Amino acid sequence: MSKLRFQISVSLDGFVAGPNPSEEEPLGERGEDLHEWVLKLEAWRKPHGREGGEVNASTPVVERLNDGIGAVLMGRGMFGGGPGPWGEDPWQGWWGDEPPFHAPVFVLTHHEREPLEKQGGTTFHFVTDGIESALEQAKEAAGGKDVSLGGGADVAQQYLGAGLIDEVWLNVAPVVLGAGTRLFDNLAGSEVALRGGEVIAGAGVTHLQYLAG
Amino acid sequence: MSKLRFQISVSLDGFVAGPNPSEEEPLGERGEDLHEWVLKLEAWRKPHGREGGEVNASTPVVERLNDGIGAVLMGRGMFGGGPGPWGEDPWQGWWGDEPPFHAPVFVLTHHEREPLEKQGGTTFHFVTDGIESALEQAKEAAGGKDVSLGGGADVAQQYLGAGLIDEVWLNVAPVVLGAGTRLFDNLAGSEVALRGGEVIAGAGVTHLQYLAG
Repeated sequence: MSKLRFQISVSLDGFVAGPNPSEEEPLGERGEDLHEWVLKLEAWRKPHGREGGEVNASTPVVERLNDGIGAVLMGRGMFGGGPGPWGEDPWQGWWGDEPPFHAPVFVLTHHEREPLEKQGGTTFHFVTDGIESALEQAKEAAGGKDVSLGGGADVAQQYLGAGLIDEVWLNVAPVVLGAGTRLFDNLAGSEVALRGGEVIAGAGVTHLQYLAG
Repeated sequence: MSKLRFQISVSLDGFVAGPNPSEEEPLGERGEDLHEWVLKLEAWRKPHGREGGEVNASTPVVERLNDGIGAVLMGRGMFGGGPGPWGEDPWQGWWGDEPPFHAPVFVLTHHEREPLEKQGGTTFHFVTDGIESALEQAKEAAGGKDVSLGGGADVAQQYLGAGLIDEVWLNVAPVVLGAGTRLFDNLAGSEVALRGGEVIAGAGVTHLQYLAG
């Protein structure tokens, strides 16, 4: 059965972005530090069209996280272009002509929009009728493979709080941001049931797997 | 050189206590769940004068955390008895006649008090001139061994924020509390420099070591 999988890089103090995000620093102050471990990996660079990169203890984790994904879910914030109606010359996403997803991507938004087809198998579908509908559509589109949940934190919190995530991987960077956007927030009153799975010491990061139930 | 070591059980979402602490639930709602992994261990039960208990993958971690400790530091809240002046019949601590520390304990407080000697080598010293003085006194009393920092969260935050902790062990329980007291809070503006150390999959808990610098 198709699973909903979620992986995210998080600081030691639980932030997925630093304070004061801006155009220059969309992940907030020092938010980039959370992703240092992955940006230097060949396993990340190659699918993003970049040369070089390391092979290290985190490589098999990244390969595994990207394996078997048939569709992607994300929030409007991660797709980008700011809030509100799409306008006449709508935002095309951060990723250029050939996004690295190579799969249908379902974007949660309050504003309707026609699907946006890109090269390499990525088509963005805009879903306006809620997280459960988006998940259903993504699972159907995944054709038996799994669905990967991207960010941002608010979308992740909604899926976590609704108990819809089957597998969570936290990539814990040894960084204390002190402020910013927390992954685990706005969950008071939700019954989030996760049990510990694998624990892998990566290179400059710790990979913690949690499973539903 | 004597090190300041800190270990604490924390929920997956970063809380060290649940919401709404009360006399019946001093650790807040579901706060006890954070400590389930340790309360069942023989390595915890024996020094606390209790029979039985398990030996499992977390046993060597607990033995190691308790080894080589020559003095303990804690906040007034962990020592207990409520805030304010000590009064005429002052609180004697939670731990009965023979506390499990077997070492000098330095309690941070705003209210002066004579040392309180208990059986088995535990004497509580009350320190009113700040965290750095308390650490100095504890290191001197430790006689070459290390100092263990207990709770609560506010004291831990002060030592973390001041960069005085040499070694942190987070015992991450697979529990999402949703609300309560966060370990990593009130640290905005502090430069907390930690690097990842060992990662150990325990029994119902994940042990993450972080080292200063």
